[in-house]
Amino acid sequence: MTYCVGLLLNEGIVLLSDTRTNAGIDNISSYRKTFLFEEPGERAIAILTAGSLSVTQTTIARLRHAIETPEGEGKDRSILRADTMLEVAEIVGETLSQVSTDISQKMSRMGQAASATMLVAGQRKGGAMRLFLLYPEGNFIEATEDTPYLQIGEHKYGKPILDRVVTMETTLSDAKKAVLLSMDSTLRSNLSVGMPLDLTVIHKDTCRIDESVRIEAGDEVFNAMSEAWSQALRNGFTAIDI
Amino acid sequence: MTYCVGLLLNEGIVLLSDTRTNAGIDNISSYRKTFLFEEPGERAIAILTAGSLSVTQTTIARLRHAIETPEGEGKDRSILRADTMLEVAEIVGETLSQVSTDISQKMSRMGQAASATMLVAGQRKGGAMRLFLLYPEGNFIEATEDTPYLQIGEHKYGKPILDRVVTMETTLSDAKKAVLLSMDSTLRSNLSVGMPLDLTVIHKDTCRIDESVRIEAGDEVFNAMSEAWSQALRNGFTAIDI
Repeated sequence: MTYCVGLLLNEGIVLLSDTRTNAGIDNISSYRKTFLFEEPGERAIAILTAGSLSVTQTTIARLRHAIETPEGEGKDRSILRADTMLEVAEIVGETLSQVSTDISQKMSRMGQAASATMLVAGQRKGGAMRLFLLYPEGNFIEATEDTPYLQIGEHKYGKPILDRVVTMETTLSDAKKAVLLSMDSTLRSNLSVGMPLDLTVIHKDTCRIDESVRIEAGDEVFNAMSEAWSQALRNGFTAIDI
Repeated sequence: MTYCVGLLLNEGIVLLSDTRTNAGIDNISSYRKTFLFEEPGERAIAILTAGSLSVTQTTIARLRHAIETPEGEGKDRSILRADTMLEVAEIVGETLSQVSTDISQKMSRMGQAASATMLVAGQRKGGAMRLFLLYPEGNFIEATEDTPYLQIGEHKYGKPILDRVVTMETTLSDAKKAVLLSMDSTLRSNLSVGMPLDLTVIHKDTCRIDESVRIEAGDEVFNAMSEAWSQALRNGFTAIDI
């Protein structure tokens, strides 16, 4: 499995993904699930992926191919040439849907199917910051003020902390804490989600990837935060009288 | 859905279930999911249920019928006459499996199936306290020192708190807090789990149901605990530096 989470806040966008990929429980590898595309100052786009690796890799490869095709048939499909973030989501959704269909057709002989979900987030100069969740069929929903976060993959363990602390007004520094603690809960409770992590921050109106950090297993800051959070939970737990 | 959790501790057994049952999202009712059987001083048994209501109600009805059958064919199937908790788990498992099969056969014409899972916990005089999780097929697993808790239903939201605070050494009072906070996280993040709650405590070697409390929506103690926990989480969150 996978856990990816994205927050859409007044100050910017914060995204976090794990890297664990498994085919069965004895074939575990590490693959990047956050893919960044930018023309600094013009547009910044992040795509986070969950689901069948064959689907997500092929989708990203086709999106890259369209970007690198300066003219001809593919050029309208380039997410770096799309006019709006909505169009970016549509292009990614259509590509995802087509790849899922192609691969599932090949797999149908084995009675299997393959699919994936994605988060697409970013901003184009002059437009608003947006955060979308794309379903395998290519349709999508969008984060709004009422629900400023979206999750894909193994999302349940890490939801309670988000439900409690995240609003549109949350600062970027608190937002980073929130997604890391949400990931920490997931890592502790589910083996199919694993380090290292990829953290991405896009500030409002900079239209660039302001932070892109890989947090490795054994990272001291992350471990200290995880330990402090455990301690805070245990202290809070002890302090409550019933 | 449902959320039920059971802890097997050195001091006793603590169990908690919600009561929300739904058929689709617009047909929501409240049904007890904790069923208690005891001969005080001799044996105490609690059964917590998750899954199709037709399966769980029929299973409990058959178990009750066997108890009320003083002699004849059914009497060996009485969980109040079983020699050990293991035999209790086997009887409940076989009944559950049979009911699931019967009902699924009826439903197969509609291309549907029905199933349920159960927690079975308790102690018989002279025996050890035991806590089992029964699968729809009637096979089961048991809580041990390594994993002193078992959950059925919508279990993911409430797992992180259990993973952090529960061991065999946890006191009964802390255990009550832990299951209530685990339920609180689930209630907040998942609408298919709802109040009121049924809390059951069986102390070690009393062989009776020592506490059986229904916690209604709006319960002041529960609300205060829930609010204190939210506050503790927010304080802990604020206190962490990254």
